[in-house]
Amino acid sequence: MKDFVIIGHKALTTGDFSLNDLPGSAGRMDILCRCINSALFLSHGMRRDINVHLILLGEPDPGKIVRFNGEELRYLNPDERSSGSLIKKALEKVATDFETRSTPGVRIRRGGLEKLMQEFIDDNRNIYYLREDGEDIRDVNDLADDAVFVLGDHMGVTEEEEDIINKGASKTLSIGPLSLHSDHCITIILNDLDRLEQPKND
Amino acid sequence: MKDFVIIGHKALTTGDFSLNDLPGSAGRMDILCRCINSALFLSHGMRRDINVHLILLGEPDPGKIVRFNGEELRYLNPDERSSGSLIKKALEKVATDFETRSTPGVRIRRGGLEKLMQEFIDDNRNIYYLREDGEDIRDVNDLADDAVFVLGDHMGVTEEEEDIINKGASKTLSIGPLSLHSDHCITIILNDLDRLEQPKND
Repeated sequence: MKDFVIIGHKALTTGDFSLNDLPGSAGRMDILCRCINSALFLSHGMRRDINVHLILLGEPDPGKIVRFNGEELRYLNPDERSSGSLIKKALEKVATDFETRSTPGVRIRRGGLEKLMQEFIDDNRNIYYLREDGEDIRDVNDLADDAVFVLGDHMGVTEEEEDIINKGASKTLSIGPLSLHSDHCITIILNDLDRLEQPKND
Repeated sequence: MKDFVIIGHKALTTGDFSLNDLPGSAGRMDILCRCINSALFLSHGMRRDINVHLILLGEPDPGKIVRFNGEELRYLNPDERSSGSLIKKALEKVATDFETRSTPGVRIRRGGLEKLMQEFIDDNRNIYYLREDGEDIRDVNDLADDAVFVLGDHMGVTEEEEDIINKGASKTLSIGPLSLHSDHCITIILNDLDRLEQPKND
């Protein structure tokens, strides 16, 4: 499996939001919804080898992790409302230190970046931090099969978060000359991985 | 300017749809909304050198072209509802053979693929057709500054449409080993163009 971690600094931590207002009252939940789409959809199918971890840090109960697991995932359509609705259902569950399944392939628990990063470090995973000034992903030919990619949201990543990430990250990567939305970065990363995994025959 | 053309085979051709049901009653309008996002958004700003032409072929009045012009565009946010709302406003205007502006940077007219392609041919534009079996975009180092990219939607491109495209297309391009959603393809194309336009210094 490969894992994507996205930090939602303002993302609401209760299911009490309207699917009609994902950017507003749900705390830029639209960004996280688009990341789910980018990480999991192929043209006719789903990327079954991907986990997406959304770290929700908004009010009223900050510090929840919603995980979308491509292998088991069901009931997800490509539109933002669809992923928004699965996040909402997860947030309606009581979050404990251990994962609770809300719908097939979607789980919630209490936690934040530090907990998640420590787990990846304990599992000896290869962690890559995405940042504008990182090494160009096209120059890296040995991206690990079990790569973990960590991305910020519209607010980027705080200094404190960066310190936590850098403790575990083996490399800082960039995806090109311009700064892009997190979901666009994920699409580009996966295109690069697809090319590494299925090299051209000619 | 660069232009993206996306064919929405089922996209509704009246503004009489709900923003709460872009995938359903609006005829997979969600796909076109995500293409708008991919083509126009940078992390902190907008791609001002991009036109997006949505060809709407659904009921009840098929054959309308909605154009988003990055240079003049206003009131667009990244979420699907936002682009959906601007498309809806355009569709509420009476479409004639000439463009009518609905909101800043958004215009509608009557027309289809053949008309649009003929205009690009008359303007001597370099037209690229996106298809899974095309030449790898990474092998093409001379993508024109005024490139036009033509993409299908979830239904692909019909044989008849393909004949029209091939009359004008200088190349058929692919974006990688897997078949991806149109909006993901646009993100990858633009990343390639960004790299061609801003080559690395080292």
